[in-house]
Amino acid sequence: MYTTGTICAVSTAQGPGAIALIRVSGPETIQLCDSLISLSGNRKLSLQKAGTIHFGRFFDGDTLIDEVLVSVFRSPRSYSGEDTAEITCHGSPYIQQRILETLIQHGARLAKPGEFTLRAFINGKLDLSQAEGVADLIASGSEAAHRLAINQMRGGFSTEISNLRHELLQFISLIELELDFSEEDVEFANREQLYDLLDKIERLLRKLIKSFSYGNAIKNGIPVAIVGRTNAGKSTLLNCLLKEEKAIVSEIAGTTRDYIEDTIVLEGINFRFIDTAGLRKTTDEIEAIGIERALKKYNEAHIVIIIIDAKDRVDEILKSLEFLKAEPANHKQLIFAINKVDTVLNPEALVKDLKNQIGIDAQYISISAKKNINIDKLEERLVKIVQNQKPVETDVIVTNVRHFEALQKSHTAIVRVIEGLDNKLSGDLLSMDIREVLHYLGEITGEITTDEILGNIFKNFCIGK
Amino acid sequence: MYTTGTICAVSTAQGPGAIALIRVSGPETIQLCDSLISLSGNRKLSLQKAGTIHFGRFFDGDTLIDEVLVSVFRSPRSYSGEDTAEITCHGSPYIQQRILETLIQHGARLAKPGEFTLRAFINGKLDLSQAEGVADLIASGSEAAHRLAINQMRGGFSTEISNLRHELLQFISLIELELDFSEEDVEFANREQLYDLLDKIERLLRKLIKSFSYGNAIKNGIPVAIVGRTNAGKSTLLNCLLKEEKAIVSEIAGTTRDYIEDTIVLEGINFRFIDTAGLRKTTDEIEAIGIERALKKYNEAHIVIIIIDAKDRVDEILKSLEFLKAEPANHKQLIFAINKVDTVLNPEALVKDLKNQIGIDAQYISISAKKNINIDKLEERLVKIVQNQKPVETDVIVTNVRHFEALQKSHTAIVRVIEGLDNKLSGDLLSMDIREVLHYLGEITGEITTDEILGNIFKNFCIGK
Repeated sequence: MYTTGTICAVSTAQGPGAIALIRVSGPETIQLCDSLISLSGNRKLSLQKAGTIHFGRFFDGDTLIDEVLVSVFRSPRSYSGEDTAEITCHGSPYIQQRILETLIQHGARLAKPGEFTLRAFINGKLDLSQAEGVADLIASGSEAAHRLAINQMRGGFSTEISNLRHELLQFISLIELELDFSEEDVEFANREQLYDLLDKIERLLRKLIKSFSYGNAIKNGIPVAIVGRTNAGKSTLLNCLLKEEKAIVSEIAGTTRDYIEDTIVLEGINFRFIDTAGLRKTTDEIEAIGIERALKKYNEAHIVIIIIDAKDRVDEILKSLEFLKAEPANHKQLIFAINKVDTVLNPEALVKDLKNQIGIDAQYISISAKKNINIDKLEERLVKIVQNQKPVETDVIVTNVRHFEALQKSHTAIVRVIEGLDNKLSGDLLSMDIREVLHYLGEITGEITTDEILGNIFKNFCIGK
Repeated sequence: MYTTGTICAVSTAQGPGAIALIRVSGPETIQLCDSLISLSGNRKLSLQKAGTIHFGRFFDGDTLIDEVLVSVFRSPRSYSGEDTAEITCHGSPYIQQRILETLIQHGARLAKPGEFTLRAFINGKLDLSQAEGVADLIASGSEAAHRLAINQMRGGFSTEISNLRHELLQFISLIELELDFSEEDVEFANREQLYDLLDKIERLLRKLIKSFSYGNAIKNGIPVAIVGRTNAGKSTLLNCLLKEEKAIVSEIAGTTRDYIEDTIVLEGINFRFIDTAGLRKTTDEIEAIGIERALKKYNEAHIVIIIIDAKDRVDEILKSLEFLKAEPANHKQLIFAINKVDTVLNPEALVKDLKNQIGIDAQYISISAKKNINIDKLEERLVKIVQNQKPVETDVIVTNVRHFEALQKSHTAIVRVIEGLDNKLSGDLLSMDIREVLHYLGEITGEITTDEILGNIFKNFCIGK
């Protein structure tokens, strides 16, 4: 991943604003800004202390482009680890454009997505997992996702992984030293201590791998499906839940949140309703297609709300729920919502009937989507389910698919190492398996990288970060 | 216009970006930020020098919201003239929102539109005309509009007006002193010098008033109408011109410009096509409505492109142009575009016929909108017309309707003063007229303001400026 020269980009959101911030980073930064920005009192930017901010006029030749503030940072004490300037200008897109053009005409080039952060990684300001945390932080739209991202950005589990990896590195050098003396049958690496370390790493990896299902769901939103018979009230319930959202963000002018369709945030947790395209229309799909779609949604969801019309006959309800027998619930959480309870005399009898006959231990809530009865209880239930799944320590939650896959591969390899140790495997074979563990652990923190890994990570960054 | 307390707002564009900037201004700023942002090495923000920028962690209680940069400015050396902090955070709308919420919970309040600039005005950092220049600068989307706005923000003609107004103030105090000694028939104010000053002011006002038609058109885009008979090729020409636009701004990723419908920028000048709603559809309006609409557009435009189908019969063309006789061209610029020249053997003959019979001295251009022939010449003509209207000195161009109206009222009053002086009007009547001149001139710079004026100006600002 090739990154040289002095780069620049608008780092603030696109479009017109009161002000905009343009970041410049690289060896020519100070000299470039010095030649384009004239500070008051004929002062030179290059003579100003790092960590200071100055009023100046940005010129393209003789043309005054804007009055700006410019702050100076010097390598290595900057975000990217390089000489950096941040130019705050008036927020008209025209001005942003003109300043960028002028910087580029004078030797800078437009930064690629995430290139400032890539440089920070290359200059050792943060590890790869932390860099990914930065991107997640910018993308995080709920309290829970934000908490996980900021934790990852600040180091999260990657410091621990990195430390354990270095301990393991010590062992492998000893083991490989043994190989040089293979005819003498020496043992430099204490097998018991190695076993303890491997055990410790294995347990950590297992914990991290287990946390992914929670972490990934928090990051991308907990997938929830609403299934049920035609006219059971799926669309009414969905609309009811969506309307309930407290849109705090948009209440304060000056900030807006992109409206994400069919998503609600409850207690800082993002719930994402799956395949509600059909539901939004009041005409539900016909029964035959309905069951097929219900199954598909059921498979994708972490939480399934099964909505039941309290006025329906029990045998009909049971028939519509048959797919539950075919598909094991696994880690899914089922909520049975008995709808239209306001129109039925004795909903409890129905609930009892269903409990007996379905034989699944699920939560039952009596609701009326139309009259907004007990929707708050349903929401509480959704929140509770997620909170119960949350691992105790938030610094060992994996949210990133790349990390998850590397952790799984590390784990497979480490299990093999432990088995090998148990079976008194020879040092050279042991060494190969340990090398594999080291490789995958190193991929997480970026101690081992390839251009492909870096390319995949940074292409998803926004420009200017 | 009431503005007290410590205010905060997101000053960068709405939506997600790599980073966002939150501005805090007012007496509690430093203390507030000190309590919420923890700098590295346990340093206190309140002990840091003005004009410095620091890495810190923004907390809401125990919850880490973000890692931020915070810069400190101290009264009076800041944009608003007050103690100010600028917090640069990661650009997720969630984080922007949380930081704002936390600041507000701890005593700040959300800034009203333009409130930072209002405070700058109140604190004497800029005059009212300069404040308006700031808003125009942010809104400016073309080179020409940008140049006028930046000139106004930097003082423009308001310094000169303010100086002349102060000279006039000297005279009025002398004249009013004379009134106290009215029975003694003294003359403290030298009438000749007064006359010279009034003449100087009158000439400046006239120049400024005259510049408004250009300045306003540059700021809002030069209104251009395309009129002509049905099927003469109006929509083809419009599409052709719009497609020609060099969208330089959007070429560089990271900046976008809001697409303004039916607007083109040529040589840094914005041309705005009037009432093209009907034109965009390929089916032109029927003839009867067409003429009425043509007239309306004609009246609103500065430049009128009259498109003529070279294949039409001369008598028909003349009939369709009859409205030109009824409506005098005034300051309008007419361009006759003879279209479909590629399908006619001898377009020059038609042009000659038309010249003779219409009797209006207008520019003729032979074009083919369909085949893109001579469209570049038409564009050159549009640019030329505007450039010819441009006053020589750019620092005496008025772009603002409010200024224009105040200048007109000042001018009416000053003409009355001069007449009064010629007619040896008594000091008390003279004084009244001069007071009126002083009032309107003062409104431009803000030396005279009302809450209504301030309210109208600042309500159109964006939040965060």
